[in-house]
Order: sequence, then C-alpha cells, then structure tokens
Amino acid sequence: MEYPSKVLGKAVEEISGLPGIGRKSALRLALHLLKQPESQGIALADALHQLVTKIKYCIECHNFSDVEVCEICSSHRRDSALLCIVEDVRDVMAIENTGKFIGKYLVLGGKISPMEGVGPAHLNIASIEKKLQSGTVKELIFALSATMEGDTTAYYIYKKFKGFNVNFSSIARGIAIGDELEYADEISLGRSIMHRTPYSEG
Amino acid sequence: MEYPSKVLGKAVEEISGLPGIGRKSALRLALHLLKQPESQGIALADALHQLVTKIKYCIECHNFSDVEVCEICSSHRRDSALLCIVEDVRDVMAIENTGKFIGKYLVLGGKISPMEGVGPAHLNIASIEKKLQSGTVKELIFALSATMEGDTTAYYIYKKFKGFNVNFSSIARGIAIGDELEYADEISLGRSIMHRTPYSEG
Ligand SMILES: [Zn+2]
Ligand SMILES: [Zn+2]
Repeated sequence: MEYPSKVLGKAVEEISGLPGIGRKSALRLALHLLKQPESQGIALADALHQLVTKIKYCIECHNFSDVEVCEICSSHRRDSALLCIVEDVRDVMAIENTGKFIGKYLVLGGKISPMEGVGPAHLNIASIEKKLQSGTVKELIFALSATMEGDTTAYYIYKKFKGFNVNFSSIARGIAIGDELEYADEISLGRSIMHRTPYSEG
Repeated sequence: MEYPSKVLGKAVEEISGLPGIGRKSALRLALHLLKQPESQGIALADALHQLVTKIKYCIECHNFSDVEVCEICSSHRRDSALLCIVEDVRDVMAIENTGKFIGKYLVLGGKISPMEGVGPAHLNIASIEKKLQSGTVKELIFALSATMEGDTTAYYIYKKFKGFNVNFSSIARGIAIGDELEYADEISLGRSIMHRTPYSEG
C-alpha cells in the first residue's frame, strides 16, 4: 500500500504495530483522527508519550504508581497482614474494582511458563520474601489464573515460603477452570476473594 | 475503573476515544506499549502528533499530500483527460493499488446523504467544475460506492455538468451492489475501472 503522504504512511505504520490492529484498521484510525479537532489527536499523542516516558512502578508491590510507594502500599487503612499475589497489574485493578479486598498486593509480573520461557527468576519472587521477612504478613493469598501455569506458580511460591509462619490461601474458584482472572466479572471475583480457601498442595 | 497511575489512566482515556476501542482494549494496548522498548511508544506518539499537525491536502484533488499539489496531480505521466471522482482518500489508495488507472482523481470528501445531513455544498463539487473549465478533462469517471448515496451523488454531478463537452462513465459494477468501494479486492476493482461503462441516467 502506498500512502499519498509520508506523515499518513508513518502513522499507519506505527499504529499497525499495535497488537490486533492491521493496516486497514490503522488507516481507518488515522483518518478518524484527521476528521476530529486537531486537539484530540494531540491529546492522544501526548498521553502516549507521557505513558511510556513517565510511568513508574511501586518499589514494594510492582504495580504502576506515580510515586515511589503506591497509594495502596502506603495506606494505613489497608491490612498489611493480607498479601494478595497476582500476575499482572490488570488483576490488581480487577480486584480493586470489586471493593472486597482490604489487604495489599504483590504483582509477580507474569507466571511460571516453561513453554514461554518464563521461570521464577523473571518474576518478583524476591519481593515476596522481603514482605514475609518483615513479619507483618499473616496470610498469603494466591489470586492467579485458574490455568496450569497459575497452579504451577502458586505451588512454586508455596514450596519456597512454607517455612514462614504464614497461612496460604487461594481465591475461591468461582471463576471457571481455565479462565483468565481478568475476564471474570466483578461480582464473581469479589465473592471469590471473600470466600478464599486455604492453599493445599492439591 | 480506577487506575493506579494518572499517566496510565489518561492514556487509557485517550485511546478509548478512538472508534471501536473500549476501555479494556485501550488498557491492553497501553500495557502492551509499556512492555515494548520506550522508543516504540515514543515513535507512535510522534507519528500521531505529526499526523494531526502536519498533514496537508492537495489543492487540486483534495487528496492528502505533503506538498501543495500532490504527486499524481503534478505528474506528466498521468492522463489529465481522465478524471476519476471518488468519495474518499481511501478510494484513491485502493484504486492506485490496482495499478490499472493512469488518470487523475478528485476526492469529493463524502457523498450526498440527506440522512447524515451531507449535501452537495459539503463536497468538493466546485473543484470538479474548475477541472472541467480547464478543458483538459475528456472523461469523468464515477468510482463511487454501489449504494443509493453513491448513485445520488453521481446523478447530481452528472446533471450539473452534462453541459460540458465530456463523457461520463462509471466503474463496472464488478463489485457486489451495496458494497463499499474500499472493501473490494484489488483484482475486482482493477477490472472494474478498466471495464468502466458510460454513465447513463439509469
Ligand atoms: Zn505498591
Ligand atoms: Zn492532487
């Protein structure tokens, strides 16, 4: 496809670098932007620039944060005795959205998956250890996907830290086996975390 | 949905302002960008900024162009006797892609649609007149969508300019009735423009 303008061609090329967006859709999005007031396109461009250059991570939980220690980690209204282990920042948002969890989080940054070459060393396991060593955590809650990788990851963490004086639990599997956590609806997910079950080796 | 970071929230808000992209998809795209090298996100942001601030239109055909008069309009290798009337810049790209047309274009910028409040005054009809007055055009080719609006638009232009010494033709309807032009495959579209038929009032 030849584009009548270099700036259009470049925009289509960059937009179609996003997952799930082909060249036709990219062109459609570019033409849409050109039909809107210029300010809308500028706002989008600025927001993306800010996103990739300014985003920071909480040094404690590894969630995104605009400050060094995120609002949840630094809040005195959150129960530090409960540590919820999730794969992804989207899972934190999903659980926060339920309004049913008053503890804190730890974002692993993925799950153990030999198929995709992800091992424990790629995940924020060391941060769990640090949290456990601080002595405030009484319960470690696995809120991982109900998939084999999720199970493997929970088992690895359980084995590694079962020597600590802490209870292990897993969110209730109200969500269908094989489902990714982030697709669960709020009510199921909220119920799931309230009715969490003690973790057992299975 | 609450976002753990303002820059993330702002990015999701702006991305989900695009057509067909909901908040979940926007979040997914934002998180994808954050997993890529920072340079990719910056390139995307820059390309969008350039797109909306730098794009220009050819003063003759109304196609996008980086210069005042576009490459097609200023080319001596293109036949100025053939003027192809299209609705949209995407249609120019689609026809150029077939490699079967050696004439020039005129981008209307839409089609007459009383339902959507688009009348002749909203379209680049005056530019057709200017082209016809120049005397170089011998054939005016309608390459409009095979829809009622496309037919109405062709009929309006035909009625307005039939006094000029010019032949009217319409691209062969090799594409299914009711189809938008831009979805036609290259081969059908190329054949369609080669086998164009004289325009009749129907
Ligand atoms: Zn934190
Ligand atoms: Zn032009």
